[in-house]
Amino acid sequence: MRQSEFFTRTLREAPKDEVSINAQLLMRAGFVSKVMAGVYTILPMGLAVLKKIEGVIGSEMIALGGLEVLMPALQPKANWEQTGRWQTYDSLFKFTSFYTKNEYALGPTHEEIVTPLFQSFNLSYRDLPKAMFQIQTKFRDEARAKSGLLRGREFLMKDLYSFHADEKDLDSYYEKAREAYRRIFSKLGLGHVTFLTFASGGSFSEYSHEFQTLTSAGEDLIYICDKCDVAVNKEILQDQNNSCPECRNSDLREEKAVEVGNIFKLKTKYSDAFNLTYKNENGVSTPVIMGCYGVGITRLLGTLVEVHHDDKGIVWPEAVAPFKVHLIKIGDKREVGDFAENLYKNLLEKGIEVLFDDRDDVSVGEKFAEADLIGLPIRAVVSEKTISKNQIEIKKRSGDLASLVSEEEFLKEL
Amino acid sequence: MRQSEFFTRTLREAPKDEVSINAQLLMRAGFVSKVMAGVYTILPMGLAVLKKIEGVIGSEMIALGGLEVLMPALQPKANWEQTGRWQTYDSLFKFTSFYTKNEYALGPTHEEIVTPLFQSFNLSYRDLPKAMFQIQTKFRDEARAKSGLLRGREFLMKDLYSFHADEKDLDSYYEKAREAYRRIFSKLGLGHVTFLTFASGGSFSEYSHEFQTLTSAGEDLIYICDKCDVAVNKEILQDQNNSCPECRNSDLREEKAVEVGNIFKLKTKYSDAFNLTYKNENGVSTPVIMGCYGVGITRLLGTLVEVHHDDKGIVWPEAVAPFKVHLIKIGDKREVGDFAENLYKNLLEKGIEVLFDDRDDVSVGEKFAEADLIGLPIRAVVSEKTISKNQIEIKKRSGDLASLVSEEEFLKEL
Repeated sequence: MRQSEFFTRTLREAPKDEVSINAQLLMRAGFVSKVMAGVYTILPMGLAVLKKIEGVIGSEMIALGGLEVLMPALQPKANWEQTGRWQTYDSLFKFTSFYTKNEYALGPTHEEIVTPLFQSFNLSYRDLPKAMFQIQTKFRDEARAKSGLLRGREFLMKDLYSFHADEKDLDSYYEKAREAYRRIFSKLGLGHVTFLTFASGGSFSEYSHEFQTLTSAGEDLIYICDKCDVAVNKEILQDQNNSCPECRNSDLREEKAVEVGNIFKLKTKYSDAFNLTYKNENGVSTPVIMGCYGVGITRLLGTLVEVHHDDKGIVWPEAVAPFKVHLIKIGDKREVGDFAENLYKNLLEKGIEVLFDDRDDVSVGEKFAEADLIGLPIRAVVSEKTISKNQIEIKKRSGDLASLVSEEEFLKEL
Repeated sequence: MRQSEFFTRTLREAPKDEVSINAQLLMRAGFVSKVMAGVYTILPMGLAVLKKIEGVIGSEMIALGGLEVLMPALQPKANWEQTGRWQTYDSLFKFTSFYTKNEYALGPTHEEIVTPLFQSFNLSYRDLPKAMFQIQTKFRDEARAKSGLLRGREFLMKDLYSFHADEKDLDSYYEKAREAYRRIFSKLGLGHVTFLTFASGGSFSEYSHEFQTLTSAGEDLIYICDKCDVAVNKEILQDQNNSCPECRNSDLREEKAVEVGNIFKLKTKYSDAFNLTYKNENGVSTPVIMGCYGVGITRLLGTLVEVHHDDKGIVWPEAVAPFKVHLIKIGDKREVGDFAENLYKNLLEKGIEVLFDDRDDVSVGEKFAEADLIGLPIRAVVSEKTISKNQIEIKKRSGDLASLVSEEEFLKEL
């Protein structure tokens, strides 16, 4: 992609009404644009990051046997009344059609849709287990939305739902899902700061598990057991006598964190509400056992920036960077332009994702400052100085040292 | 994909409350499930079709210089008041936050978002033209929604917006977009029944253009000029003295049709509302000239079924079929199973998308009826009879003749 063809702009100053670091940097670097509190337009480079996140998550969901679907955001009141959540679910957007006078909820989650869907399939024991997932836009009527992409009123989520004949099967699937989640956060460059966290299991399970990523921007408090490498959410700490649920160590470390994922044994909570049963081997109707597994995709975009930035800008992990290489042409000499254009072509031919700063009307200092702000993994500079030695100046965004290499070496190393 | 692993079911009978052919067939074949009138869950095979449609459209949008973004569905009242459409736009879902008391619209279109976004970029003449598009979920508070996927209360659309320095540049871009749209509908297997149709240009353009696909399920009436191969929407027929806007032929043929796309010269209608200007060569602020270009993606899913079906079920055009081959194993003999499993493996290795009916508990008649209902382009049957000759029985969904071929021939022909 040529930067001259972009329509987005980097901003020198953070927008005044935006207090969160992730939104400030994502807006300054041109990844998102704010529409109102908690609601953003995702610009091309932001969308490229989201698609990489979706790719990592989607392939793990398919490996878990998940089939992809797309459920609606517009949901009928009757379904939410059937679970009792029309009145009790905080932050549910509700409204009425002008024409039909029907009442709707805007879905913050999809148990109220997926459970009757499976009920319609008339499952037998031979059909189980099954799992389905979606990557879909959700809505929450948040009282406050000051954490940028960490807490949106509209946001993308991946949610997977699993359906089992008995609790033992759910338990073994749940373990697999937990490992898949570990791999997801590790692949995304968040593994080292993301803790499996014991959280409330509601009235029907002992625990649920959250994946909490350490960041001072987080709105949750977790208590880490360094012996077990797990954490406890503050909400259940007292119930656990202020100790680790695994080893009962009470020397826990308090940290701020953001919940990037959660997995929950729903058991028969929603099956009971919608009479979701299957016929067992003896032809007897038996409640289906359910689990649900969520990841906040737009929230991960914000979390990645909170975790991976410095005072100059974003430092994207390679797995989610919108481009791998930021190729920067310095000066408007024809030979420099030819060298850079040729390198750009060769990078594209090799299948390398490259952002090419081909602009003539921007100063060297601005180009470098922008490159640091945007934060692509590798900066490759072509200037009169470098081409005089038939070389390119390479610098990693995460390091300080620049080095001169030939084009051949550069292409080989990528 | 193995059919034994699917969770969806085909239905013998059409749902009683669904009068449209597209929804009846898509529900019976397990592509969608109805949540309420005008709102559907897209099941795995339906999503596969949507992704193929999106692929065809997306590549044409990129060829038009469009950069992809994702704008929000949740839109502030202020933006809709600024264009005057808060009160005048029919079928706008409007509601109020319980916590903040802010009022929102659920976006049926995005001029109210994209125009202030571009305004924030402080464009100069050197930045123009620019184009951006999204594939995104839209909402309409429809008084009636009886046409299945043709008229949803929630639906996927592709919308592209273009920004120009002058009308001449818009005109030339608009021509290119028109040709891109022709290619899209042609690639999707709808070219032969889709007419460029003159429609109202509002108060600021002489015409807009719709792409109308002929089907008795359509809610629009168009008048085709067979000399020019264009049509006129009923809404402007009288203004055109009941004649063709191109050749003034008044021998027009009335047809029912569904609007699958539209392109519109917005000119300065929205630029004026949001003060979207650019600095021209002399540094003078000048209104940006805009165009917009929409395609209904979920609507295309329904339209494809209305156009391509027979009394047995759907007949997918190859470009959008969820799988190319429906491999059907007949009988539970071990040799038949081995042959079919091996063929399945070889098809996958060759990169062929194949649905494998590997089920043992379904009769031959049911398997064939389901295959016709689902409508994949090629049916490949493996049975005791065929493997006795070391062959496979091949039949196109669009034809009547079955033929026996060797696996080698079959793989070569695909």
